[in-house]
Amino acid sequence: MTISVAASTRTLTAETVFDLLERVRHKTPRVHAITNAVAQSFTANVLLALGAVPSMTFAREEVAAFVAGADALLINLGTLDEARREAIPLAFDAARTAGRPVSIDPVFVNRSPVRCTYARDLIARGPDLVRLNEQELEALFPERANAEELIAAGTVLAVTGPEDRIEGRAEDFRLMNGHPLMARVTATGCAGGAVLSAFASVETDTALAAACGLSVFNIAGEIAAGRARGPGTLVPELLDALYVMSLDDIKARLRA
Amino acid sequence: MTISVAASTRTLTAETVFDLLERVRHKTPRVHAITNAVAQSFTANVLLALGAVPSMTFAREEVAAFVAGADALLINLGTLDEARREAIPLAFDAARTAGRPVSIDPVFVNRSPVRCTYARDLIARGPDLVRLNEQELEALFPERANAEELIAAGTVLAVTGPEDRIEGRAEDFRLMNGHPLMARVTATGCAGGAVLSAFASVETDTALAAACGLSVFNIAGEIAAGRARGPGTLVPELLDALYVMSLDDIKARLRA
Amino acid sequence: MTISVAASTRTLTAETVFDLLERVRHKTPRVHAITNAVAQSFTANVLLALGAVPSMTFAREEVAAFVAGADALLINLGTLDEARREAIPLAFDAARTAGRPVSIDPVFVNRSPVRCTYARDLIARGPDLVRLNEQELEALFPERANAEELIAAGTVLAVTGPEDRIEGRAEDFRLMNGHPLMARVTATGCAGGAVLSAFASVETDTALAAACGLSVFNIAGEIAAGRARGPGTLVPELLDALYVMSLDDIKARLRA
Repeated sequence: MTISVAASTRTLTAETVFDLLERVRHKTPRVHAITNAVAQSFTANVLLALGAVPSMTFAREEVAAFVAGADALLINLGTLDEARREAIPLAFDAARTAGRPVSIDPVFVNRSPVRCTYARDLIARGPDLVRLNEQELEALFPERANAEELIAAGTVLAVTGPEDRIEGRAEDFRLMNGHPLMARVTATGCAGGAVLSAFASVETDTALAAACGLSVFNIAGEIAAGRARGPGTLVPELLDALYVMSLDDIKARLRA
Repeated sequence: MTISVAASTRTLTAETVFDLLERVRHKTPRVHAITNAVAQSFTANVLLALGAVPSMTFAREEVAAFVAGADALLINLGTLDEARREAIPLAFDAARTAGRPVSIDPVFVNRSPVRCTYARDLIARGPDLVRLNEQELEALFPERANAEELIAAGTVLAVTGPEDRIEGRAEDFRLMNGHPLMARVTATGCAGGAVLSAFASVETDTALAAACGLSVFNIAGEIAAGRARGPGTLVPELLDALYVMSLDDIKARLRA
Repeated sequence: MTISVAASTRTLTAETVFDLLERVRHKTPRVHAITNAVAQSFTANVLLALGAVPSMTFAREEVAAFVAGADALLINLGTLDEARREAIPLAFDAARTAGRPVSIDPVFVNRSPVRCTYARDLIARGPDLVRLNEQELEALFPERANAEELIAAGTVLAVTGPEDRIEGRAEDFRLMNGHPLMARVTATGCAGGAVLSAFASVETDTALAAACGLSVFNIAGEIAAGRARGPGTLVPELLDALYVMSLDDIKARLRA
């Protein structure tokens, strides 16, 4: 489903992408991620390779303190147990109070009506960014108008797929980096969402931050796929590629 | 303990093993795994490398919907907390209603009497497959007759060790693939169990499915051990080997 | 903050370090680790590469039985949810009853006052070992005298940083192995703590055990950093280096 409210589609330059990457590397932002159990370790390693500092607790007694001391909050619904359900609104409130960007990744809402309802309520609170794929988008917004309203109200949608679309109020982005082998590793999408959070902590134009962060992550995936023999070796190669990514790497590969 | 009720021990051909592997690759079955926290990520990556699609939630509100939409259910008892305890019967019922194969992996029942009792009750419900090692087998069935009754009633036992034994009502299998280095990586057994679940989703002869799935996983381990310098490099190599495994790989190595 | 009550700083020999490593390899100790969700898999793999046998459940019904059958207990506070909170005192008591060494890793106590209070109460029970970094040390013991009292009462502190300090009642150690790239992988500190637990299970002089265990882990990190291209390839290399570490490796690198 195409959902665009923006007047124009913006093209990224390698210099802009690299500038934001360097800002992340220098700021070493703290990203608090309430993410699913399968994705936690890979997400933490992606953030560290990028130069960010992850924390991941969702104990209700301490989650607000962690978020208050963080530079960005990521909420991923991949394993939505009771403890996470309780922690998520506390974390959302703490991020809003501290003025930190909030991203939501409504994983697999197309697989569970209960989760879909939960995600819809959460998104109605107006996060800065929602990252999701085409099936999740359709499950969440059977009426296209609802997605458009959300964007018009200021939430950026990052719709991932063979082509990624960043849908902002003022501008859209169309991104064509990435590699099919990434889909054969668990939680690459979830970990990529954490990159977007890290980028949103250094750039208030959330659509631009999301476009640059996703391009960096997908370029790392491409570089890794070129060196890997399969999904197993892809993981260490992807982390290494993120860690050493240069302006030249981005210039050679950016398609946005 | 030898427990056999089958009339004959069947020999596998590489062609049969590869045929089932290809059926998994083409079906891309959804495998819902309620598995222990340590094994989740590796299990998901093994399933993806194989061509299957993992889901892993155990939130009681949504687990039945996930299982209803899955092609197979794996229940692994490796970290048996309250949330998993609650989810497991809901998942089992949903799989039975949907007619999906159910596998149980009673990890470490020899280490905790409470867990052993829980596992025994669960297995009394008649899953399609139980994967366990020799010590777990003896903890669960101090009387050999109970294991034989279970098999006679239609549950297949996959007893892993230096030699693996698949014990079915009609036929047995003796499998000799695998490598000792696999035991130096956490959750290889658990992840291997998920392969059996994926194979059970494409072949109703559960004993045959288990024998083929375990052979594929152990051959991947052998190939990986030949390329690895230790347990660290074994993990990416094993995933890559699963991903690219050919009929020739199986022909060259199958010992079953 | 320098906190020393010991009369002397002891120097390690490569032979002593290797002797303890070999004792771990031959004993294959069971280490029960209640550790954070992000660290579980890597910690288990570090223990297995070392020759130890991990278990990680924190279900309250079974945790005591697991600890009673283990050779050492590690309590890591990295994700301190309700289930872990309940399990920790049960595990601590079971370890004390069985006479097993208890190590505590008060991760991120500087990020949450609630967690800091919890950790302080736990440490007041007198574990054998506390592993922490400089910021965590200062959060826990704003008054230096409290840390000194703890050491004088028999708890060993392992304070990690660019230089690691093992502070015991009778002797101190100063350790200078390790590599900055290790900090770019999640849970290296947590996994290193598990190595200390494994070493404490073969040597009653806890300060010596901690010094040897930390040296082995950090030397593995150095060897891995020499072979890795970034934090991604560091992980498999570190596990391989632990698995094959020889007396010559230690002789060539030990700085303690």
